[in-house]
Formats: sequence, structure tokens, C-alpha cells
Amino acid sequence: MLLNEMSGKARAASAKLGSSNTEKRNEALSAMAKALTERAEEIIKANEADIENAKANGMSDAMLDRLTLTDARIAAISESVKKVIALPDPLASSEQWVRPNGIKITKKRVPFGVIAIIYEARPNVTADAAALCVKSGNAVILRGGKEAINSNLAIAGVLSDALFSVGLPKECVQVVPDTSRETANKLMKLKGGIDLLIPRGSKSLIRSVTENATVPVIETGAGNCHVYFDKSADFEKALNIIDNAKRQRPSVCNAAESLLVHEDIANEILPLVKARLDNVEIRGCEKTREIISVNAATDDDFFTEYNDYILAVKVVSGVEEAVKHINIHGTGHSEAIITECKENADYFCASVDAAAVYVNASTRFTDGEEFGFGAEIGISTQKMHARGPMGLPEMTTYKYVINGEGQIR
Amino acid sequence: MLLNEMSGKARAASAKLGSSNTEKRNEALSAMAKALTERAEEIIKANEADIENAKANGMSDAMLDRLTLTDARIAAISESVKKVIALPDPLASSEQWVRPNGIKITKKRVPFGVIAIIYEARPNVTADAAALCVKSGNAVILRGGKEAINSNLAIAGVLSDALFSVGLPKECVQVVPDTSRETANKLMKLKGGIDLLIPRGSKSLIRSVTENATVPVIETGAGNCHVYFDKSADFEKALNIIDNAKRQRPSVCNAAESLLVHEDIANEILPLVKARLDNVEIRGCEKTREIISVNAATDDDFFTEYNDYILAVKVVSGVEEAVKHINIHGTGHSEAIITECKENADYFCASVDAAAVYVNASTRFTDGEEFGFGAEIGISTQKMHARGPMGLPEMTTYKYVINGEGQIR
Repeated sequence: MLLNEMSGKARAASAKLGSSNTEKRNEALSAMAKALTERAEEIIKANEADIENAKANGMSDAMLDRLTLTDARIAAISESVKKVIALPDPLASSEQWVRPNGIKITKKRVPFGVIAIIYEARPNVTADAAALCVKSGNAVILRGGKEAINSNLAIAGVLSDALFSVGLPKECVQVVPDTSRETANKLMKLKGGIDLLIPRGSKSLIRSVTENATVPVIETGAGNCHVYFDKSADFEKALNIIDNAKRQRPSVCNAAESLLVHEDIANEILPLVKARLDNVEIRGCEKTREIISVNAATDDDFFTEYNDYILAVKVVSGVEEAVKHINIHGTGHSEAIITECKENADYFCASVDAAAVYVNASTRFTDGEEFGFGAEIGISTQKMHARGPMGLPEMTTYKYVINGEGQIR
Repeated sequence: MLLNEMSGKARAASAKLGSSNTEKRNEALSAMAKALTERAEEIIKANEADIENAKANGMSDAMLDRLTLTDARIAAISESVKKVIALPDPLASSEQWVRPNGIKITKKRVPFGVIAIIYEARPNVTADAAALCVKSGNAVILRGGKEAINSNLAIAGVLSDALFSVGLPKECVQVVPDTSRETANKLMKLKGGIDLLIPRGSKSLIRSVTENATVPVIETGAGNCHVYFDKSADFEKALNIIDNAKRQRPSVCNAAESLLVHEDIANEILPLVKARLDNVEIRGCEKTREIISVNAATDDDFFTEYNDYILAVKVVSGVEEAVKHINIHGTGHSEAIITECKENADYFCASVDAAAVYVNASTRFTDGEEFGFGAEIGISTQKMHARGPMGLPEMTTYKYVINGEGQIR
């Protein structure tokens, strides 16, 4: 009932937002950014209630840190809303052609309409996602985690007021106040009410969404990423890249989880890897363990996205075995080959089935900002609609507008 | 078990097909077209078995006609395979850019990999779908209806042999021999085995797929299409268009099911509509029935895709009410306004949420061939990935290939 009401209001709001021009949507973003800093105090107050509850529930320090909002963090959130203003309007592009019978077909970018996002702890997602949806002309229904519910409601309230202040409907941005699992399940099945559902969060959340949803879904985020050291790898590049891919930020989806090493260089390079990644637990295959003293890796290890200072290592016979291993164990996210051999690089790029395939660069670059998209709503690991980092264009669809003078078939 | 085996073979075949060049794929299509006519006799023999079974099961004459293959029909199927050769290679396009840190990003069109298609009676779909999949580099698993199983297996056998004759794997094209509902349900849940599932057929088939599938799905075909006669409509255009949209081929998804008429012209035009559509059963709203003597339309009528010589008619107060009615009752397929007023045309095009919106032309143009795409795999009524007629480009996805010289983040 509640969700039906919310999606009905979102639908009406999306009609107004979707037909507003670039200037109006940018004006809204500007008002949203300003309101966030001006009303930081009430957001922080709401956040304090979340922190208190979280402490009472024994949340870990790392998670508490992700949940906490400060003046500086709210200023940063406001800044990232402002950045969206400068991005090109994804609704501006269109193609046009005329058919022999004279009908003129225009393929026009249009918003999806109502986008729902299910996400977990971090409250900054509330503002980031709202900004990208407003820019792309979509009303958004946000269902965050229960840990951040007070913060999320406070942020959405501030953003709604800002939208209203520039003449757009408050309901362009709504947070689902009920964080129960039942309500999330209902949201996934709101066929006709939701045009696109984007889950952002743990593997289990994403699995639950793809198994239960009847509305269109984009899967995001699962990243069991590999780096493969080919026989001809430049050792310095190789070590820098595996270090960066594993340790620069182990908790994220584009961090490397497995290292594959060509058997001809394993003796030489594996001791260097072990020395370099001195705070990483290495779990190796049998051949690896003949060369360096490390724990044993099971087949399960090669399927695991650790998101931690752990790396599975396997010695392979060459690029073919590497590709085969990756296509079986990977999640289609980001995969890298380190090689000086163009032929092997080409084979790897053509044969690995993933959103992003790297030659001599770190998997950590799979990111909207790093790709030059300016911002992203998530990283898709599916092939339909959008693959890899999803920027503003991926938050739009299209319609055909056909102009005739009475043509019939 | 069987399906896992089929999808495993399809995966291996897709790797070879997907990395073959344009010439090889066109050579395959040419061999496929040739084999169809050369081996027409054995296809017709298999088809005769289907016809016999269908007659024994009391299939209607219209359905029997759709099921029947003749030399002439097989020649036509072969011709449509040949036509695909001339279409541009959808895998040929790519975009490239360099980031400030020097990494070179290439966005490359690639095949999905393994496409599954669930469809109903007509055996020509087997060859058409196979041709589009081969051209776009995808292996295909075809699950047709039980009525056509012998014809489908015979056609697929001929196509597989043709593929093999040019050095491509037979398993690029496979027909599921088991037409049980259980096997279809398993196919919908073959996560990892199927990259894209396209259901083609009845509303109930498509609903079953969207409700049960865990693999990515494109919804197709449901078309509750409207024609709206605005106050300023040119009567001649209006009558020609509703006649064409309703009667040229009532059984297809882009035929009109409802007519909306502006109240100011209803008195004048409704008698003309009735006279023109003399073999169509009109079901009217109350206001319609005050003007012409017709059966009454219930709200259910306005939600119904008749696919028959039946038309629901409603008198509306203007373009706003027409749009509201369409957005509630339509299926997002094809919607037309007949008007000489640019302002109303613009409002209609901007506000109607559908794949194709027409001004002064028949809804019957929503078709890959008519749009200039040369061929289509179906007409999408969803917004994700593809909307409206889906040609070869919509049968591809993309991957990012990133070339660096050791860049890390």
C-alpha cells in the first residue's frame, strides 16, 4: 500500500522532472547542494541517532566510520552533487532519419521514469544517487539499510525541499521509511511502478534481487577480479600493478582477488610478490607452494571475493589456461594481463568475458570517474543495457517519435 | 542435465563464432540459405509429421496454415536469411578515448554469447532467429513449441551442417528437443549458461518468463496500441490510419486495439468510423453509444489486446485525457495521435510513455524492416537495453578494453 502510493507519486513527479529542461534540472542540483550544507546540523543530528543505535547493536568500528556524517563529510557530499551540474545532459542527444515513405523517425533519449535503488549502510549514496537521478530526469525511490534510516530520511527531506524550492515535485526523491525485508521484496515486485531497480551492496543482496525481482534489474558490483602475469611481463609493472590492485583499497569491487602467474616466470616472480605484499595473506595452488611458503588455496578460494588483505595465487601454463580459469571463476567485472607480447594481449582481450579487460594497467581503474564519465551509479556486471561503470547515459532509455503525413502500411 | 550440456556446448561455440570475422559469418549465412533450399525436401517431410500430429490434436485451420511449410515458403525463409548478409556487421563499431593518465579505453561491441529464444508455433522463426544470432556472433538455443518440434529440429539440423561446412561449430544453432514446460522453466533459470533470453509469443508466455526467469530477459510483443483522433484531425488521414492500424493485419502486436476520439469531433467522425470499419466489432464507451449504435465496452475491454476484428472506442475531453488513458491502459508499444495541431502533437509525444509514438501515421510501422533496421528479433516493450524494434545492434553488448603502460591508481 505504502509502496504503491510512493511509486504513484514518483510516477507523477517523474513526468514533471522528465519534461523539465537542462537548466531547471541543474538549478535543482544547485539548490540541493546548497541545502545540504545549510542544513548540515539537522542531518548530523539524525545521523547521531543512527550512530547511537548502531553502537548499541555492536556495529564494528570500520562500519561505524562509514556510517558517520560530519560537517566535512556533508560538505564533500554537497561538492559531489555540484559536480553533477557540469556533466553533459544525457537527455540532450537524439538521432533522426527519414524513411522512403516519408515518415521521419526520431530516436530520442528519455528518462526511465521511476528508478529504485536498494543499498546498504553508507548514507552518502542517498545524495549521490538522488543527484544522478535528478540530472537524468528520473524520480528515485531509495531503500537504504536500517542502520542509516534516520540519516537517509533527513538527507532526502533536505533534497525534497530543495527540489520544491525550484518548482519541482518533492516526490522526485523519496526514501522508503520501512526498512523491513518484506518491504524490500515488495519493491522488487512492483511491476509497472518501478521502471528500473539497481541493487548496490553485498553479493547476497544482489542475488536476492535477481532471484526475486519481477521489475527490470541491473546487477552491480560483484568483483572477483584477476591479474595474470604473462611470461613476457615486465616485472616492475607487474609488481606495481598487483600491489595496487590488491592493496590500494581491498574492500572495493575492482580490487584483485586472484593472481595467475605463467609457469616460466613463477620461480622468479613469486618470491618478489610475497615480499612486496607483506601484509597480505597469500593462498597458493600446489605449484605456488613449491616456490613460496604460503597457505593452501582450495577451489573455493578461487571463487571468493575476499574484499580483504588475502590473495589467491595459481601458476598456469600460459594465457589460454589463464583465460579459461578467469572465465570459470570470474564475475565478469575487471580482468588484467601484464605482458609485453601483443599477441597474448589481444588473445586475452578477445577471449576474457568481462566488462573491463586491462593490458598493463590496474583493475582499480574500473570506475566512472576514472573512465571519464564524471560519476557513476554503480558498476554493472551484466551484459544487458549497461556493462561496467554506469554514468548518466546509462540511466536513460529511448523512445521513437515518428512524424508522418497520413502514411499507412 | 541436457540443458547444461547444450549451454556448455553453446558457450564453446559462441567463443569461436564471436571471434570470427564479418566475412566468415556472412559465409556461414550464405551456406545456411543455400542448405535450406537444397534440403527443402527433408524439412517438408519433418513438417508433415508436425501437421499430422496437429490435425490429430484438432488445431485450427489458421494455426495449421502458420505451421505448414512448402517449397515456396522455404525459399522465402532462405531469402530472408540471405538478406541478413547485406546488413552491416553490428560488431564492427567501437569508440576509443585516452585518459589524462595515458590509459587508452576502447569500448568495443561484442556478442552477448549465448542467446536463448522461447517461441511458439511458426517454424520460420527458427531460421530467422538463427540467422540474426549468427550475424551478431551469438550462439543460440531455440526452444520452439511442441507443435513444430519436428520442423524445428530439421531446420536446425540443416543450419548446423551448413555452419560446420564453413568451419564453424554445429552448436552455434541448437533446438531443445524436449518441449515440456519443465524444461522451459529450467532454461529460464540457467544463470551463467544463458546471457540473454528473448521470449516471443503470447502474453502468458511472456508473463511466465518475466516472473520465473533469473537470466536476463527482454520482454517483447504485448501491444495494446491506441489511435487518438484529436480535435484538429484531418478526417481523411484519420480514417485511413485507423483502418490500416486495425484491419491491415489485426493479429499482430502493432495493430490498434482502441480508438480515442476528441469529444468535439465525435458526432461527426464516429459514424464515418463505423461505416469504414464495416467488418469490425466496435465496443464503445457510453458517450460513443449515444452517437453510434454499438456494443458496450467495459474497462476490461480497454486493457485487452484483441488481435482480432474488434475495436474499443472511447470519447475523451482532449489530449490530456487521451494521454492519461493510454499511460494507464497501454503496454508501452505503439501509440498514435492524428492531429494538425503541433502543440498537441508535441504534448502527446513527450507525455506518452511508449516505445514508439506516432504523429499522423499508422502504428503498423513499428517493425524492424519499416524502421530501416533490415530485420528484427522482436519488438521490446521494456525500457532496459532495447526498446521498440530490435535489430542486430540490440543483439550485442560491449566490453571495455583498457591499454596501459603500467598505470596504477
